[in-house]
Amino acid sequence: MSQTTTRASWRDGPARAAILDFVQRVSDEAGDGYVPPPERVAVFDNDGTLWCERPTYVQAFFLLERLREQAAADDELKARPVVRALLTGDLRAATAHGHEAVIDVLLHTHAGWTADEFAEAARAWLRDARHPGLGTPFRELVYAPMLELLEYLRAHGFRVFIVTGGGIEFLRAASYDIYGVPPDDVVGSAVQLAFERRDGKPVLVRQAAILGSPNEGPPKAVRIQEHIGQRPILAAGNSAGDAAMLEYAEAGPRGALCLVVNHDDGDREYAYAGFAVTDPDAEPIGDTAARRGWTVVSMRDDWARVFPHR
Amino acid sequence: MSQTTTRASWRDGPARAAILDFVQRVSDEAGDGYVPPPERVAVFDNDGTLWCERPTYVQAFFLLERLREQAAADDELKARPVVRALLTGDLRAATAHGHEAVIDVLLHTHAGWTADEFAEAARAWLRDARHPGLGTPFRELVYAPMLELLEYLRAHGFRVFIVTGGGIEFLRAASYDIYGVPPDDVVGSAVQLAFERRDGKPVLVRQAAILGSPNEGPPKAVRIQEHIGQRPILAAGNSAGDAAMLEYAEAGPRGALCLVVNHDDGDREYAYAGFAVTDPDAEPIGDTAARRGWTVVSMRDDWARVFPHR
Repeated sequence: MSQTTTRASWRDGPARAAILDFVQRVSDEAGDGYVPPPERVAVFDNDGTLWCERPTYVQAFFLLERLREQAAADDELKARPVVRALLTGDLRAATAHGHEAVIDVLLHTHAGWTADEFAEAARAWLRDARHPGLGTPFRELVYAPMLELLEYLRAHGFRVFIVTGGGIEFLRAASYDIYGVPPDDVVGSAVQLAFERRDGKPVLVRQAAILGSPNEGPPKAVRIQEHIGQRPILAAGNSAGDAAMLEYAEAGPRGALCLVVNHDDGDREYAYAGFAVTDPDAEPIGDTAARRGWTVVSMRDDWARVFPHR
Repeated sequence: MSQTTTRASWRDGPARAAILDFVQRVSDEAGDGYVPPPERVAVFDNDGTLWCERPTYVQAFFLLERLREQAAADDELKARPVVRALLTGDLRAATAHGHEAVIDVLLHTHAGWTADEFAEAARAWLRDARHPGLGTPFRELVYAPMLELLEYLRAHGFRVFIVTGGGIEFLRAASYDIYGVPPDDVVGSAVQLAFERRDGKPVLVRQAAILGSPNEGPPKAVRIQEHIGQRPILAAGNSAGDAAMLEYAEAGPRGALCLVVNHDDGDREYAYAGFAVTDPDAEPIGDTAARRGWTVVSMRDDWARVFPHR
């Protein structure tokens, strides 16, 4: 985002200009739009906003690997139609057996594991696992312009949070290494944890039950308040599941810069319209953005490059 | 905590020595006990650990002020025995009518308020309200040695979190001004929030229902994971409701410095043994500390002064 670096991965255009104008405005102590640093809170969706979510969510690959292990050791599990569909890797086909059935299977992949065991497994997996189509490690399929934006915001006194619909503990395992975002600044869907003692020591054990609701749609706004406790002045997303979060930020007393990543670059990434998993009939976010005047970021037009190492 | 400042409010003694040794050990890159800064997480209970909790919790004064307004406008409410007992200010007498009855009344003091309205009310109240016995503003009844400790930890790369049994939104309203702790670094008990639209704009509305369980005992450990996502290497408390949190920190791979504030100074503050509200029969934390070898901080012996302005 730097206006001086030669490595800038944003092209000149309305999106880049809107970001630079906004950051300059909130940083200008003499101006009307000044926001003191403690109130400079920025929130970013993760899948499809900060890193690639196609052909499916990174976390799904991780969960399916574990499900494959479980199915290999459990004939009853392997024979269940929803599991058979999941193991083909086709999430859409699997949901034909019911959204709840899919969730239930996935909630059981790591039930009974401690929080520490799960974190270690996720960390190890994210170190090595590669995207099946591109061959690149998943952890490198982050968007270079967004990394640059996070850095730019921090340099201007912002605190940057990730508000993901995905599992909070999965992303936390690598959020600091990948984005410079420490675990406490990740907000996401979560499973319930039980306090138990093993070998006389307290551990937190993952239950096969969601904590509250999945972090998508209006729950994203609720969880921002629960977890962050301040209304963001910048919010970025790419699907209908992010619209409530952006609208909530915008309705704050200081307003907000709302960014919508448009996946319109089938050559360098994927071309598709984002949708909300929990509410597939929700208004497409492109329409919401047009209606509300949000800033659309075109991958094709606004980004000089997409990935840092490709 | 500075070893050079003349304003140090810690006396030489085993508690101060334990803190200095610990911080030096985790900061020494060449030593066995080195902890990289991103993992230097410290958690502090609030009531009785960072500020005065006698004759009762600060938040209780705030809630009872609102209950008094409600009762003045509602004869049915005013006539309820639990409300009559609460309005005398005697929480102990009120709980004779049942813990649930007390909680229910208090949950209704701000039900239907938006998160923003509640924050503004709490902020305004904390600006002016004074301790009935001491005449000092509540916000100044923080412990000077603990403010110094928070500052000392931050100067050594720690991130400092408050993990309170009290209401998260109440404390957040002033946590940055009082402790330098931003709202996202406060963990506490919470009410459920509903996403609604008022005048066409999204708001979050407080419900008369607790989110999960009160943040005391084992739930403190669970919520540390949910909210912070890392095991603390320093944990401080003053009641049986903090014991699980300290034990959880201590059981981590790096161990932890566990501090227990002992209210043994009836002259400068209050002399009493801390207890757990939700489990009054739990082992007194002084006994737990002795059994586990935790570091006890004596207000009388270890603190050169107690409050910053008295």
